[in-house]
Amino acid sequence: MFKRVLVANRGEIALRIIRACRELGVESVAVYSEADVDSMHVQLADEAVCIGKSASKDSYLKPDRIMAAAEITEAEAIHPGYGFLSENARFAEICKSCNVQFIGPSSEVISMMGDKATARATAVANGVPVTPGTDILTDRKVALEEARRIGFPVMIKATAGGGGRGMRPCFDEKEFHKLFDAASNEAMAAFGNGDCYIEKLVLNPHHIEFQVIADRHGNFLHLGERDCSMQRRNQKIIEECPSPLLSAELRQRMGDASVSLIQAIGYENAGTIEYLVDDKGENFYFMEMNTRIQVEHPVTEEVMGCELIKEQIRIAAGESLSHHVLNAVPRGHSIECRINAEDPYNHFAPSPGTIDLWYAPGGKGVRVDTHVYSGYTVPPHYDSMIAKLIVTAATREIAIARMKRALGEFMIRGIKTTIPFQLEILNHPDFQAGNYDIGWVSRFIEEKKG
Amino acid sequence: MFKRVLVANRGEIALRIIRACRELGVESVAVYSEADVDSMHVQLADEAVCIGKSASKDSYLKPDRIMAAAEITEAEAIHPGYGFLSENARFAEICKSCNVQFIGPSSEVISMMGDKATARATAVANGVPVTPGTDILTDRKVALEEARRIGFPVMIKATAGGGGRGMRPCFDEKEFHKLFDAASNEAMAAFGNGDCYIEKLVLNPHHIEFQVIADRHGNFLHLGERDCSMQRRNQKIIEECPSPLLSAELRQRMGDASVSLIQAIGYENAGTIEYLVDDKGENFYFMEMNTRIQVEHPVTEEVMGCELIKEQIRIAAGESLSHHVLNAVPRGHSIECRINAEDPYNHFAPSPGTIDLWYAPGGKGVRVDTHVYSGYTVPPHYDSMIAKLIVTAATREIAIARMKRALGEFMIRGIKTTIPFQLEILNHPDFQAGNYDIGWVSRFIEEKKG
Repeated sequence: MFKRVLVANRGEIALRIIRACRELGVESVAVYSEADVDSMHVQLADEAVCIGKSASKDSYLKPDRIMAAAEITEAEAIHPGYGFLSENARFAEICKSCNVQFIGPSSEVISMMGDKATARATAVANGVPVTPGTDILTDRKVALEEARRIGFPVMIKATAGGGGRGMRPCFDEKEFHKLFDAASNEAMAAFGNGDCYIEKLVLNPHHIEFQVIADRHGNFLHLGERDCSMQRRNQKIIEECPSPLLSAELRQRMGDASVSLIQAIGYENAGTIEYLVDDKGENFYFMEMNTRIQVEHPVTEEVMGCELIKEQIRIAAGESLSHHVLNAVPRGHSIECRINAEDPYNHFAPSPGTIDLWYAPGGKGVRVDTHVYSGYTVPPHYDSMIAKLIVTAATREIAIARMKRALGEFMIRGIKTTIPFQLEILNHPDFQAGNYDIGWVSRFIEEKKG
Repeated sequence: MFKRVLVANRGEIALRIIRACRELGVESVAVYSEADVDSMHVQLADEAVCIGKSASKDSYLKPDRIMAAAEITEAEAIHPGYGFLSENARFAEICKSCNVQFIGPSSEVISMMGDKATARATAVANGVPVTPGTDILTDRKVALEEARRIGFPVMIKATAGGGGRGMRPCFDEKEFHKLFDAASNEAMAAFGNGDCYIEKLVLNPHHIEFQVIADRHGNFLHLGERDCSMQRRNQKIIEECPSPLLSAELRQRMGDASVSLIQAIGYENAGTIEYLVDDKGENFYFMEMNTRIQVEHPVTEEVMGCELIKEQIRIAAGESLSHHVLNAVPRGHSIECRINAEDPYNHFAPSPGTIDLWYAPGGKGVRVDTHVYSGYTVPPHYDSMIAKLIVTAATREIAIARMKRALGEFMIRGIKTTIPFQLEILNHPDFQAGNYDIGWVSRFIEEKKG
């Protein structure tokens, strides 16, 4: 096992990793920007090194500063957390060349899965379903035939499109030619390139992701799924495990697909495979793979009774997966709310500032992961997440009651947070029925306006 | 289910019950003394009623005040917590006569198990082993024969004895007559009564208790044991589940005995049967039964994945035990530290006062039950416990590492606490080996003096 691990991140995930190190008997080194000097992750690490000014590009995104900190403190390994350099293949490469163990997969695997086209091709090659689609289609008639083959509804997409331009959903073949031309013309006008292709349009899809993990000793497994469909502008707000949508049969199929994919690419360490699932819970489509720990990993830990960060460190040290993971059996239901310093009733505008009072909920089945405390000032420079509130109970119904109880107890004064918005969701019959997809939050916000 | 429950207690257990009510959709009424107006249990209840001055005898021990509060607030049931009136048969009787459901067993059962002699006789009648002992023995020769029959070592005890006087341990029959006379003479001189009896002396015993629970629908079961041997002057300091001492075979025997006892007495609601177990883990002896929830109930909840306070409320409302309890399967290991406002390095003198800073640990596997927060003033009137820190992990070894990590993170400024002492215990090889009995703490304190 390593003697000392450097944590190349900030906030709650830095503290999470530091705690895992402490329990493993491994020393931890925090790095921090000038804005983060008062963060609890700096206070609770065994050592802490300032690596630059507040902006991420001057600190947490600077491989040279981080490698210098590792060298000074004689850290043998680096845990990148999520975000920042966690999926940067070059950083993994630099670690290797400096003889510091990167806690994650190899730079080759990060590159492969970081490139969307390669990732998709890899999925296809290994029998993992992807959203059906075509290459560029120049002939409208051929395009219509392809659309019929894929099955309506389809999305017509310009290869040069972006920001919503050059895209047209098409529900009916009568409209097809008109919409194909519109997409093409719009892309031509905006980007000088009218080439279009077609993809299956998955209606009201759910975002379901599988936690996977693998060591160097031939163990490749998944630890079940998380439902992350409750999102606003692709930012997850509430996550849960297990998914209220998945049947045992679909879970089995998706789990098998996930394991066969990581086995095929010789994956090492923890990762997450993200899928879209149609609203009937029948078909699933590979979206992408995240080659790092995920923000919402605690709901998996709680239900599976295992510890992902410790497993990551162990794997990187060459050990095999612990029997807690190899023999994990799910128990109960877990829900996570990401508590953000944002004003949910003013377009989720960031709300940095000093927290005068911080009282976090406690008691049975409540876990709080945070670097924040009374008197802490939330800096304006980073992601607005200030805490993760995770509740676990025997059933989803009890977990929902618990989350409402815990959110209700949370007292944060001095800044705005997403808590009242999350309480609205928890109280909504759709959430309680498990009846929500990735469009639910934006529809809910629109309805409230109306 | 009840619409509203009154919580006839204070501190962390009051808050624990209020949280359970909230999750069940039951309104909660807090009662509080003048000293407790700022306690979090008062702030988080749906309603709160002041029931008197700070001294317990003027507030939490006043049945009439509590009943008046229940009447005003139209509470249908009363949860007594632990301590105070929780094992007061008359209070249970008063509740019944006022048509308010007491959340616990009947007053008859409380009386029966509250009287040590009756409780012991009930255990014997139901085949539950008790410490072998005799009636009063006036003849020294007969006494020696009895001592031989029971087997050395024995404890010679004066019926009138107390405070250590009129008691003599005897390890060898050569010493017996001399010690018998000494005990008798000492009791005669001190209490005017020299009558003595003999009991088996269990050397270095462990305090092991079984959590039992029963409803009105014929379900009687136990939820495993807790090891509470780490105590100072009969005050538990650290508790754990499961016990490091018990074999599966002894666990089975003790569990069976516990269930047969509660079945025989027609027990209802949650209770705890306390046993002494010899240091070889071979024999167990009934000590007493607590007809209420126990301070250390969370370690059972964590390992068994159930919720005892909710089950208590459900049982009192006439419901049957939930399937979470009926089908509970143990997972992992849980340890609790009672954080007391005491100075462990000054004879554990109480340390009331204002808490300037309160930072409780968090993260994976950490549960904190407390009514305390930054700025709270610990009143001098009550028990010195200010929080319970419970950690749970896959194994005892990981749980110990986690408890050390969590105790290390705890920051409490303004008062003294038992945390540094508990860290000493957690770091001790004896605790780590599970090698401790009820005399361990006092021996440890003595050794440190020497």
